[in-house]
Amino acid sequence: MPPQPAQSPVSAESPQAPAAEDFLRDFRAMSEFGATGRGGVDRQAATEPDAEQRRWLRRLLEARGFTVRFDRIGNEWGLLERVPGAPFVVVGSHMDSQPTAGKYDGAYGVLAAAHAAFRLQAEWEGGGRPEPRFNVAVVNWFNEEGSRFKPSMMGSSVYTGKMPAAEALAVRDADGESVEDALRAHGFLSEWEGPEAAFCAEIHVEQGRSMERDGVQIGLVHSNWAANKYEFAVHGEQAHTGSTEIPDRRDALLGASMLVVAAREIADAFPGKVHTSVGQLDVYPNSPVVVPSEVTLLLDLRSADEDLLAQADAMLHERVAQAERAARVDVEQRTSHAWPVTPYQPEGVELGEKAAAGLGLAHARVMTLAGHDSTNMKDLVPTVMLFVPSVEGISHNEREFTRDEDLTAGVDMLTDVVGRLAAGELEGRAG
Amino acid sequence: MPPQPAQSPVSAESPQAPAAEDFLRDFRAMSEFGATGRGGVDRQAATEPDAEQRRWLRRLLEARGFTVRFDRIGNEWGLLERVPGAPFVVVGSHMDSQPTAGKYDGAYGVLAAAHAAFRLQAEWEGGGRPEPRFNVAVVNWFNEEGSRFKPSMMGSSVYTGKMPAAEALAVRDADGESVEDALRAHGFLSEWEGPEAAFCAEIHVEQGRSMERDGVQIGLVHSNWAANKYEFAVHGEQAHTGSTEIPDRRDALLGASMLVVAAREIADAFPGKVHTSVGQLDVYPNSPVVVPSEVTLLLDLRSADEDLLAQADAMLHERVAQAERAARVDVEQRTSHAWPVTPYQPEGVELGEKAAAGLGLAHARVMTLAGHDSTNMKDLVPTVMLFVPSVEGISHNEREFTRDEDLTAGVDMLTDVVGRLAAGELEGRAG
Repeated sequence: MPPQPAQSPVSAESPQAPAAEDFLRDFRAMSEFGATGRGGVDRQAATEPDAEQRRWLRRLLEARGFTVRFDRIGNEWGLLERVPGAPFVVVGSHMDSQPTAGKYDGAYGVLAAAHAAFRLQAEWEGGGRPEPRFNVAVVNWFNEEGSRFKPSMMGSSVYTGKMPAAEALAVRDADGESVEDALRAHGFLSEWEGPEAAFCAEIHVEQGRSMERDGVQIGLVHSNWAANKYEFAVHGEQAHTGSTEIPDRRDALLGASMLVVAAREIADAFPGKVHTSVGQLDVYPNSPVVVPSEVTLLLDLRSADEDLLAQADAMLHERVAQAERAARVDVEQRTSHAWPVTPYQPEGVELGEKAAAGLGLAHARVMTLAGHDSTNMKDLVPTVMLFVPSVEGISHNEREFTRDEDLTAGVDMLTDVVGRLAAGELEGRAG
Repeated sequence: MPPQPAQSPVSAESPQAPAAEDFLRDFRAMSEFGATGRGGVDRQAATEPDAEQRRWLRRLLEARGFTVRFDRIGNEWGLLERVPGAPFVVVGSHMDSQPTAGKYDGAYGVLAAAHAAFRLQAEWEGGGRPEPRFNVAVVNWFNEEGSRFKPSMMGSSVYTGKMPAAEALAVRDADGESVEDALRAHGFLSEWEGPEAAFCAEIHVEQGRSMERDGVQIGLVHSNWAANKYEFAVHGEQAHTGSTEIPDRRDALLGASMLVVAAREIADAFPGKVHTSVGQLDVYPNSPVVVPSEVTLLLDLRSADEDLLAQADAMLHERVAQAERAARVDVEQRTSHAWPVTPYQPEGVELGEKAAAGLGLAHARVMTLAGHDSTNMKDLVPTVMLFVPSVEGISHNEREFTRDEDLTAGVDMLTDVVGRLAAGELEGRAG
């Protein structure tokens, strides 16, 4: 039997703000879905553990009277409509994970959003806070991670109109199953386009160590790093690994390995200023005695400084040409996807600073190096992005860890930010 | 319906030596099994195309009165017993292939062995050649390639006692199917240990370009290159490809890529004298936004000179230590398998020279860089290993090509060598 939402006697009997303990109890229950046994989770998009967790979230939200709906790309929405017909403050993150991942990441942000909404609901109902001007929608975005279905941030990309729904639904995983079939099998698909958003808020663990180092409990994200993402296909020719003479070889794996090494050397040329990586690399035919004929790889360059990113890009293309000559291969750049440094709305950052100061939480402006669903949402509506610290910055790893007091401080902070957004504090300042 | 063995009217009516045309017709028919449509084949060990081809070979041999049996590791034997109780001249190679491979490779050697035996049978029956002192066994060794089931040369390793049968049968492919189950499903398994060998002969395409360059039609293999084969597991730690600071990363793919590049630089340090390669490399978790935590790879060093190989090995281990420091990873050497430069019996090489001279074929002594089943057999019985040229030395590639006149000259040569071995020309010189 799957874990059940925590229902403390107090919160079940009277609709008052659930305590920090309620949040932590729900967080522990949620972390059982896809648990890996080493403290992490494995719940890739629309797999069974992801689906179980989504059903659990639905029960959690419905028990508080929220209306739960799935949209045309499988985003899970919990609607709290106190102002009939008014647009929504969208608050949430994503519950899907990498194959072996930490249990915080986006899942923390969805549960924090739900508990923030529960507290506001109780305050509005109990008269502890004036009735809002906007409604609240808790969202669990579909497939933020992109490990099973590419690209990442799929649910928020479709919601914000950056990716056509039909294109996203047609994407297939490595076994050939489509997004559409995977979502439909779990009953997570409809024709609905989702609620109308007025504002957005998201909270996430930092995935870096700057806040821990600086003793900051709440990060106010003011912009994202720019990124260039490339898919390269390195074309060589099959040969016998033993007998083929070295000058005759056209070794695709050698060419690809030179690009992996080049990526790191480019990062080392701009210490702390440029991040590079190759996370995925596939070899064909991948047999012990065959020189590989084709290798595909995904390579990223990221920087907070667009000029440095342009320099890094130029270096990369020089290194591609070198690898082509040295390994006698052809390097095909199949796709390239880039985004610039873009700011979150400054008035949202200021609202966050006011909230943090009011709560007495140590806070600072930070940038996000990772992409988030809020990176899409901020292009649609004023968006407040918050971070809580991540011990040692460990991310996408079963050892990811954030302290309980930081988790619950984050829920307090998110509650106040969503309350302010729902009260219309940014109204008239949008756009 | 699968292709049928060629049965020319002449050879079907009278048991005389089938002509070169018969051989080429059978070779074309055989090349349909697992044909890739680009001139190559895909018939990995105990897959359906490999099994179809084995059944076709059985029919070919049985049509000539040979007794066909499968042994305890699925080697396919065609026994021609003219001297009851006498041991056998074992002649053959392997019909399995790499995933996308040329149609010559080992398959040529098995069919050449069958046709050599047919011609000898006809000559012995027709009185054109004195009755032999030894019997002849045509063999199609199981899983020489090692792409589906590791290690390579599995059938001859078990037959020669170098690998326990139980260990080989327990090996599983990437889908978890065992050798035992795969062989049993096709009815290719028994308890039999195979026939008693007295001598061995094998013919194969060169897989290099030295014979083509030197205008040699028959290569007499006098020894093999030495080889060191390593399986490395590079251990890093999962992290976020975007947000994790570069000095905090322990990137297993970076470490592995440094080893791939190092392997080539080692080869370049000994031009023409040392061959190196990485054919297989697997990344975990292999997701676009996760720094890989584990990469496994198979790396080979080969040389005809054992001193150079020892120098190359020392360089490799220096480079492993460098990669460990630079990428902050641990490199675990999981297995290491090595063989020295070992000679084929000189009396066998001399016998080959006599045969080639008698047939008027341009011949030379050569070394083999690739491993062959005869590399195992030569440690058991006196063994003659022959090569025919390979155009441009292209191997493990659908473009592999050997000219018809070289193929048929090889069959003529193999026929004479097996005839001499069966006549006892090396008797008393063995051991």
